Order: sequence, then structure tokens, then C-alpha cells
Amino acid sequence: MTEGSIGRVTPQRLAFDTPLALASGASLPHWELAYETYGTLNAARSNAILVCHALSGYHHVAGHYADDPKNVGWWDNMIGPGKPIDTNRFFVVGVNNLGGCHGSTGPSSINAATGQPWGADFPIVTVDDWVNAQARLADALGIETWAIVMGGSLGGMQALQWTIDLPERVRHALVIAAAPKLTAENIAFNDVARQAILTDPEFHGGNFYRHNVRPVRGLRLARMLGHITYLSDDQMAEKFGRKRRPSAGSYGFGVEFEIESYLHYQGDKFAGYFDANTYLLMTKALDYFDPADAFEGDLAAALARAKAKFFIASFTTDWRFSPARSREIVNALVRNKQSVSYAEITSPHGHDAFLMDDHYYHAMVAAYVRNIKT
Amino acid sequence: MTEGSIGRVTPQRLAFDTPLALASGASLPHWELAYETYGTLNAARSNAILVCHALSGYHHVAGHYADDPKNVGWWDNMIGPGKPIDTNRFFVVGVNNLGGCHGSTGPSSINAATGQPWGADFPIVTVDDWVNAQARLADALGIETWAIVMGGSLGGMQALQWTIDLPERVRHALVIAAAPKLTAENIAFNDVARQAILTDPEFHGGNFYRHNVRPVRGLRLARMLGHITYLSDDQMAEKFGRKRRPSAGSYGFGVEFEIESYLHYQGDKFAGYFDANTYLLMTKALDYFDPADAFEGDLAAALARAKAKFFIASFTTDWRFSPARSREIVNALVRNKQSVSYAEITSPHGHDAFLMDDHYYHAMVAAYVRNIKT
Repeated sequence: MTEGSIGRVTPQRLAFDTPLALASGASLPHWELAYETYGTLNAARSNAILVCHALSGYHHVAGHYADDPKNVGWWDNMIGPGKPIDTNRFFVVGVNNLGGCHGSTGPSSINAATGQPWGADFPIVTVDDWVNAQARLADALGIETWAIVMGGSLGGMQALQWTIDLPERVRHALVIAAAPKLTAENIAFNDVARQAILTDPEFHGGNFYRHNVRPVRGLRLARMLGHITYLSDDQMAEKFGRKRRPSAGSYGFGVEFEIESYLHYQGDKFAGYFDANTYLLMTKALDYFDPADAFEGDLAAALARAKAKFFIASFTTDWRFSPARSREIVNALVRNKQSVSYAEITSPHGHDAFLMDDHYYHAMVAAYVRNIKT
Repeated sequence: MTEGSIGRVTPQRLAFDTPLALASGASLPHWELAYETYGTLNAARSNAILVCHALSGYHHVAGHYADDPKNVGWWDNMIGPGKPIDTNRFFVVGVNNLGGCHGSTGPSSINAATGQPWGADFPIVTVDDWVNAQARLADALGIETWAIVMGGSLGGMQALQWTIDLPERVRHALVIAAAPKLTAENIAFNDVARQAILTDPEFHGGNFYRHNVRPVRGLRLARMLGHITYLSDDQMAEKFGRKRRPSAGSYGFGVEFEIESYLHYQGDKFAGYFDANTYLLMTKALDYFDPADAFEGDLAAALARAKAKFFIASFTTDWRFSPARSREIVNALVRNKQSVSYAEITSPHGHDAFLMDDHYYHAMVAAYVRNIKT
């Protein structure tokens, strides 16, 4: 397949003045969503794809910005002209979720009621809330039904929730490297990450903005820990093993092993720009996600209302959301006699594999998407 | 078998005035070891067992203290009259390692040169250093040759190192839930734990003692993270799953899931008494441990000098040091045609299984130990 980039893209923003009722009981009176679109919506409005992002993603999914050509979208290898999600055929929408820190209303946005950043007052948002907000964006864009709602990890959970909450509005769901709910171990890792942020003295109960500081230490630890769970043990062994930094000292607590250097680099980079409150909100949305909960834990019952066809993919070395977790979704759909394709992809890259340019993985997605009528 | 407790025990302490040369090149001029003994050394001095502790363990291995009857030794289920390590037959020695915080010389001890706690000036210690220090204790106790050197996790690594460094002085090594060296992922977890401590504002570069504070937040995070790696995913799922605290609020960042409550309890308890510098030292000793390194990575070559017979045990759900890691040791010994027994024990308890009172596990240890002549 031809693999071009969509090229220069421009972020957009839409303000909503109808309040959004949230799962928590709270309500957002005014809110904005940052989004991007690639390709052209056809006359029948039948070729629209919604791409949902994971914990640290946002609306910049493909292409690059005129004033920042190195800032390439996080799924640029998947989406573009001639790519598995072919922008010559489809109209693709990327959106930053509510609670985010990339342009959509979130804890670092100004709360009109106070003239100050929302901070700790920003309400907890759930995957359901995101689906509702994304549906309002779809309304505004004139998209009644998505050809596809798709995403990896937490993004895949949103795709799944779409099929349950708004079954008439999704024809296909691509649920990649996801799980129907978090395990105790998943929650435990999120908890440690949150505690790192919450106990950082510069967190100031979530209102660090007004102190002109940021809980950089906590955010850095959270991201370092996250990265351990994104990579596979095998890949870490191969990429870093026990290799030492050439310049490393010995018998001290400085950086010595290559893996330490990698984690510090990732942690520092992330802590430099990401909003700590957004990190808390995203991990909490993950913890809460459990569409089967309203059906006495019966995932098949929860999915029974879905009208979409499903493409589920997992990666062999993903231990954050292992293939077994994807198979829970597949099995529930099979039990319901719903349409589902499942790809368990051999990859050394752990959870991060869903972001990688893997030939077989992309070929599977491309083959599935090619058969979707627009 | 009869399972009695050794009962009341008394910690002891021995001061050494001959400097101890360390792997780092540093030297400890004066140092002390805290230790306990159970049972009676026989006339031939052939029934002595050294029990080495893991990251947070110490010399209080079995029994309880007169003034603190609830403080039962960490391996009391394994060691006592009629237990797998039968104190009616054996003379058992538990020791707190150098760098520890339970009585042996460590960062919180007073440095005679300054009259202040050692703090950041305490030298990095390695598993080799501990073996050397333990050998000096053996000399003082009149023990030329240990019937057994044993331990779990980092304790097992010390047992392994004993057989290589002082082959004439160990007849049997019981190496339980250990590994011949850490993987990149193991080091990564240690790194995050260390960074939590090192970046805690109350760490003060390791010299927090003089500020009358302790890096409680960092230590708490380190321990929470540690606990995730000590438990198995399955066991966490069974014990905690997605259960909520009865009193938990919703849609906030307080404790909500049972697993969070468990981790916070464990973290708070540990942070209340453990020394942060000791935690750093112990994790660094783990990272450095790699007896094959001096033999171009050939573990069999490293072990070739050992004269001990080996009992190696691992636990099926241990993902910190998985059975595959124990099998590396077994395979190296088999390649050398050395004597080795191996038990791969089915257990739901993850890495922590080595501390548990598991019938099959204890029966295997008991059977091996019963055949050891004293």
C-alpha cells in the first residue's frame, strides 16, 4: 500500500453551551473540544471514523502542524492516504477528551465561574462521559453514524462503550489492546501513579496552578512506572538488558543502567508538559470502566445491545491488557452471535505494540477496513 | 511434623574492629552485626545454618521477643522445633545485613568519624560484601563450615554467592525464589522505587536525619510498588478484584478500591519504620548482583567452583523472579554435573510464596534438610 502522510493539519475547537451531564452527577455548563479532521466527509456522511485516544494521547492523530513539522500525530503510521485507515476514502476525526490538557476543557482550563483554572474542582469524567461528549461533536459535524469508532488501550474502551451506549451510531468498532475492565493489578499500578502525584508537595491539592508550580516529581514517577507496563519484559531485556551507560559512575545512586536512563528520559519529557490533574482523571476513568457492571458482571449482556461489527486485536507480549483480556470481549460477542474478527498479533513490543508500525498488524486492520462500505 | 515455635529469643550484636574492604573500594573501619541464634551448635560445629534475609528482612527470623510477643520472626513458619528447619537438630543464625536498619551498621548508624548518622556517606554494599561480613560473623561464632546457607529472593542470592566466594564453607545452599541476576524490568522497578525516595524533598540527599524528617512519601511509594511485584496477578484478582471499600466515596481521588486500601496500608506501615537509605542500598545490591559477570556471563563457569549441594525452589505465579530464572541456576548446575534438587511449587501467592506456610513447599524443604548429616 502507498504510505503517505496526510501532511499539514490544523487543530480546531468547538465550544458547547448546552451543559453536559456527567456520570458523577456533576455537570459542565460550558465546555470545548479540541479536534482535528483528515480527509473529506462524503455526501452520504457515511465515511466518518472517530479515533479515540489513550491515557496520554490527544486529537493530533495524524499529519503535522505548519509551525511544528516535527510534531507528527501519534497514530500517523496507521492513518493517512493509502494507510490502513485510508484518508482518501475516509473522513477521520481525532478528539481530545474532556479533562485533557491539549485544548479540550480540563483541569488546567479556566473555570468561568471563578476566573481561575478548574484544578481540583474539575469533575471526574468517565468513558461514558467521553462518549456523550464525542457524540455532541458528531452532531455538530453532521455525523449521524460513524463508519468506525476505534482506538487502542483506553481508546479501545471508548470504542466499546460507544457500541453499547449509542448502538445506532456505530457501524464498526476497532478495539485494540484493550480490556473489558481493569484488574486489581491494573488498578494497583494506577493507584501508585496517582499517589505519586497526590503526595507531591507541589500538587497543592490539585490547585498547583495558582502557586506557579507543577508536581513534576510525581508526574515523572507516574510516567516511569507507566512505561514499565507499556513494554514487554522480553523487549526490555533485548533493548536494554543489563547494559550500563558508557558515562555511568559506579557504586552510587546516579543513572547507571541504560534502562534507568530510558525511564528518566521518558519521565522527564512527559512531566515537562503533561497536566497532573489530567493524569489523575485519565487513570480514574480507566479504573471505573466496566460496562458489564450494570449487567451483574455479564459482559455478553452488556454487549447484547451493540449493533456494530467488531474487530478486536491484541498483542502477544502485552501484559498490561493481555490477549486473554481481549478474548473476554471476543467470547462475549461470540456468545451473542455478534459479528467479530479477532487478531492476536505476535509482537515483542508489549502494550505499546498498538502504536507501532507492524506489517502484519497494519495489514489486518487494512484488510478489515477495506471491506467496509462507505 | 510437630510445629512449635522456638519461643522467646534475644537479639545479639557483635562489633568488628578489623576494617571490612568493600567491593566499591571503600572500607568500613568499625562495624557491627545484629544477629540471633536458635538451637544449639553441636560439638562438631557441623549443624549450623545461616539464614540470609531479603530486601526488608533482618536478623529476627524466628521466635518472639520477651517484651514484644507479637513481633514474630519473618520465617517462623519455616524455622523452629519440628519445623522444616528443625531447631532441635540445627543451630540457626539470622543476621541483619550491613547497610540495614535493624541493628547492624547502616546509614542510620552513627559514623564515628563525624559523630553524625552516616546518611549519604554510607558506602554502597554488594552481595559479595554481605557474604564477607557474614563470614566474619561465622568466624566469631566458631563456625568453619555451614551445613546450610539459605534464603529467599535477595536472601537466596546471598546463598548462591556464598557457594561461589567461599566454596569450602558451605555444604548445602537453599536458594529459594531467586534469580542469577536482575532483568531490565527488575532494575526498572527498583529504579522507580529509588527515584521516589531520591526525589522526595525530605530525603535531603540522604542526610534527612539531621533535618529531623524522613522521606516518608517516597518510601511509601517504593513499598506500594514493591508489593505489586510481590503478589501474583491472579491472587490480587481473587483477594481484591474490583471490590470497593464499604465506606468509600465515589468520583474522587480518595481510597475507593480494596486494592488501594491494601497498598496504602502496606506503604504507610513500612514507611513508618524503614530507613530510606537502607532501601536504596538493598535495591542497588539487587541490581548489581550478577555472579556470572566475571565469567563473561557464563553462570555455569561462575558456579563451577562451588562445592555445595543445591536445593533450588521457585513458585509458579512468581513474576518477580519466575521459575524460568531459577531454572537458569538449575541448568548451569546440571551442566556442571553438580548436585541439585529443584522444586517448582504450584502456588497462587506470587513472589511472597517463599514466606508462606505452604504444605508442599515446606515438605520439600523438610525432606531435603532431613537427609543432611550433622
